[in-house]
Amino acid sequence: MTVEEKIRAVRRWMCENGVGALVVPTDDPHGSEYPAEHWQCRRWLTGFTGSAGDAVVTMDEALLWTDSRYWLQAKEQLAGTEFRLMRIGIDKEMEDWLEEHGCVNTDDNPRFVVRSCEEPFDSIWMDRPSLPLTKAWVMPDELSGESAASKLGRLVRWLVEQGRESVLISDLAEVAWMLNIRGSDIDYNPFVIAFLQVNAKGGHILYVNDSQVDGIREYLSSIGVGVAPYDQVSCQSGCVCTTPVAVWKASKNSVEQDGFRQAHVCDGVAMVRLLAWLDSVGSVTEIDVAEKLTALRAEHPGFMGLSFGTIVGYGAHGAIVHYEATPETDAVIRRKGLLLLDSGAHYFLRDRADCDGFAGTTDITRTIAMGVPSGEERRVYTLVLKGHLQLQHAVFPVATTGLQLDTFARAAMWRAGYDFGHGTGHGVGHVLGVHEGPVQIRRNCRADTVVPVCEGIVITDEPGIYVEGKYGVRIENALLCVKAWETDFGYFLKFDPLTLCPYDRRLIELDMLTDDEVCWIDEYHQRVRELILPLLNDDTEREWLLWATERYKK
Amino acid sequence: MTVEEKIRAVRRWMCENGVGALVVPTDDPHGSEYPAEHWQCRRWLTGFTGSAGDAVVTMDEALLWTDSRYWLQAKEQLAGTEFRLMRIGIDKEMEDWLEEHGCVNTDDNPRFVVRSCEEPFDSIWMDRPSLPLTKAWVMPDELSGESAASKLGRLVRWLVEQGRESVLISDLAEVAWMLNIRGSDIDYNPFVIAFLQVNAKGGHILYVNDSQVDGIREYLSSIGVGVAPYDQVSCQSGCVCTTPVAVWKASKNSVEQDGFRQAHVCDGVAMVRLLAWLDSVGSVTEIDVAEKLTALRAEHPGFMGLSFGTIVGYGAHGAIVHYEATPETDAVIRRKGLLLLDSGAHYFLRDRADCDGFAGTTDITRTIAMGVPSGEERRVYTLVLKGHLQLQHAVFPVATTGLQLDTFARAAMWRAGYDFGHGTGHGVGHVLGVHEGPVQIRRNCRADTVVPVCEGIVITDEPGIYVEGKYGVRIENALLCVKAWETDFGYFLKFDPLTLCPYDRRLIELDMLTDDEVCWIDEYHQRVRELILPLLNDDTEREWLLWATERYKK
Repeated sequence: MTVEEKIRAVRRWMCENGVGALVVPTDDPHGSEYPAEHWQCRRWLTGFTGSAGDAVVTMDEALLWTDSRYWLQAKEQLAGTEFRLMRIGIDKEMEDWLEEHGCVNTDDNPRFVVRSCEEPFDSIWMDRPSLPLTKAWVMPDELSGESAASKLGRLVRWLVEQGRESVLISDLAEVAWMLNIRGSDIDYNPFVIAFLQVNAKGGHILYVNDSQVDGIREYLSSIGVGVAPYDQVSCQSGCVCTTPVAVWKASKNSVEQDGFRQAHVCDGVAMVRLLAWLDSVGSVTEIDVAEKLTALRAEHPGFMGLSFGTIVGYGAHGAIVHYEATPETDAVIRRKGLLLLDSGAHYFLRDRADCDGFAGTTDITRTIAMGVPSGEERRVYTLVLKGHLQLQHAVFPVATTGLQLDTFARAAMWRAGYDFGHGTGHGVGHVLGVHEGPVQIRRNCRADTVVPVCEGIVITDEPGIYVEGKYGVRIENALLCVKAWETDFGYFLKFDPLTLCPYDRRLIELDMLTDDEVCWIDEYHQRVRELILPLLNDDTEREWLLWATERYKK
Repeated sequence: MTVEEKIRAVRRWMCENGVGALVVPTDDPHGSEYPAEHWQCRRWLTGFTGSAGDAVVTMDEALLWTDSRYWLQAKEQLAGTEFRLMRIGIDKEMEDWLEEHGCVNTDDNPRFVVRSCEEPFDSIWMDRPSLPLTKAWVMPDELSGESAASKLGRLVRWLVEQGRESVLISDLAEVAWMLNIRGSDIDYNPFVIAFLQVNAKGGHILYVNDSQVDGIREYLSSIGVGVAPYDQVSCQSGCVCTTPVAVWKASKNSVEQDGFRQAHVCDGVAMVRLLAWLDSVGSVTEIDVAEKLTALRAEHPGFMGLSFGTIVGYGAHGAIVHYEATPETDAVIRRKGLLLLDSGAHYFLRDRADCDGFAGTTDITRTIAMGVPSGEERRVYTLVLKGHLQLQHAVFPVATTGLQLDTFARAAMWRAGYDFGHGTGHGVGHVLGVHEGPVQIRRNCRADTVVPVCEGIVITDEPGIYVEGKYGVRIENALLCVKAWETDFGYFLKFDPLTLCPYDRRLIELDMLTDDEVCWIDEYHQRVRELILPLLNDDTEREWLLWATERYKK
């Protein structure tokens, strides 16, 4: 079906049902950032593949609201369809638009506006995928650092304190974290599609497709969790409410922190080998690079899978913030311009006779000069790097929020007249979603930016500058928040970078850096060299790393 | 009456009236920051003179809640009384405390908790001052830059757009700004105590004590404003609501901007003369310094009065953020340690044959070495100066808020383990309140910190570090927000410093500054020299300024 045919089918259904406006959100019933294929109604209907956006179809119009990360991509993917792009923050807001166009539910017609990713798609989406049914497995306590029994105990105590009888956890990452279980129902997100009901008096229930938990029924029973069919869940099962689970999950325990560190060493080896290869290889395409990187990661026995679709954006593609090369767009990488490479992986290795196991998740972006860079490319790269370094080396008192820290990453580029439209950093889950709440580093004053950044969180630091039609620059490390010191003025926090991969010295304009910034680069490169060099076997790769991490200050 | 006698009188009244808790706020009916003496019930009752705080008296307890600016001061002023200090942000919040102590209004007793600065003070405060009755006068259009008729026209158009019939303006600064009138009912704040009712259909009403507007009745009538007695105001007069007046008032027009610039030149001359005097004078006290500064300001024919009580804090007094020397505390200033000097003035000069008139308001803080400073004093001063300079030289896109900018002023000191508890900057009114909303630079995510900083606002930049019992350092300039440039990435703003007075080079640790920061100091000192030197007649003062503004980079 073409997009036009799909819109016609929606309108036919609207007509038959007296519906004046259909709102198709990206959300699934779990509020997932990456809903299962089954729930990708908005994508199926519009052809827009971005991870955020709401479609609206009325009898006269078809619109798509999405945020600035996706404007370029949406413009391209909606081209030639009836769907018109509405830019969040610039164009009229969806709710206001609906109201102004008379799309309001009334007592006479309480279903004039329908918000749904189930009806009418159940009937009009012919080859709609069913919900996935992958097997759940258990993350052992020695890799999670805290047993599910302990986590359930914490939540039960909280329920008792709150005077509540039960709570229904719908967030898939929270379900996975609470029970120390994982699955592969969602691309890149090792979740099982399930709801977890936790009761103050025990007898917790996991609402999940029966066949998925065959192998772990005994484990579940041992931690006091029974199983009920997924579709039997209802609000009576203990209404969804705000729990402290998101905050607990965000602050990593020492075992998780250690897992993150080891995962970043593995990832650093793969990245360094890729960058060395890139500097020597002949003609390759964006997809070649993505596949090569996955192959290098997969050489490690702990490689579990990617944590999101690898972004390899050459030249102008680098300016499309969430670009993912397809066979149609795949560009040949030449010996000029910039290559933007944003990727990550999950690692999971059980304890073995020869080594201890570990588990962790990575997310890294590097921008690479593919030839002799221009002055503008060096200047823009250095502005991004300055912001990245200022945030990475920020020291701040407890109770500081991501909204406050955001300024660190932007100050330098603002002074030069540049800015970027996406957030500066997101939490990273421990073998869970690579985008994890509740802490975020972004400039909007939203609920998730006023959550204080706290000890133990892993958060990314990824400022960028994007010049449409030309190039994009983004530099991203994952940071662990640790205690800095305690003074008369309070308890201060700082960041410890987890990511281990050199910045591109060919793109650094030394004159634009302060002394501190030059020292920070040297120290970072020293650390990358110490941890990654011993793990490289190939002489070319070793030489590349020695060159890439050469000190500025001797 | 002693504080204990006052508390007893309050409790007697509570007993007789079945009141369980009396809450005495600092607010008056106009929400003023500095209420008239008549409304200073909280101060009268507690003895605490700070400009913010709520007192609570129950039959068993007497408490005072105030914010971190006032903790040291309140501790001192409440010492020996029954009042106990409750620190906002650390101790239990007032509303929670009341609830936990059973102080809740019920249907049975809807007056168990009374919040008031009228009753019971009407009866127990014997020598309570009556409301002031100063004469109102008109700020001419050539100094305000916009006629009252034009401002009323704007507000009427807004009312029509909103479909509202009328609005009651209670904020005294807004009343004064709307009508271009001033008075002297409040110390330091040239307001007339009045309410202004603006009607969509015209026939606006100023509720004011009749005798105060005798001289401007004709003027008021010419702009369509009638007069009614102050105490006849009621909510029926057009309920108070949120209007755009605060935002209009905050963004200064070009005439006001010019007035600010001229006021700061006058103020710079007085400050430079004071600092030159301070470096040469023998033994003086804090009050001597405050009086000398006022005398120097008063030499200018445009000097109208101070914009707030001058703070001269020597040594440990500098750590008391809103310290104001009294004969009892007045310290002799010795040739060692630091002196903190925070002051400001209103200037108003009508057009004359020999020069054009101008009107503006200043607010400046300098910290001065009174002898050879210690390494710690230099280090702390330089940290404060770095934050001050980073904010003063910030460039940022339109829609950036004070909450985001706050980080600029704190980043350097955070990295060294220091912080401060007060806001970083406040708006400054045009011959109105020296503290003006709605824009503020502070780290709390409050309504007034998420108002974007916009072109034309005048805002202070005043970070500090305070070491209790030792010294305080604060450096403050008033900044005018101006357009920086427009790029593909949007419209950028920056600040232009209005204040003209050297930083203390004896306290600057050059090694701690970046090249940019050194250049910024040199440029600023160059500008101070250019604008102030021609206005100094005394050779010693001229030499002092030449020495104080010497360049670091030749």
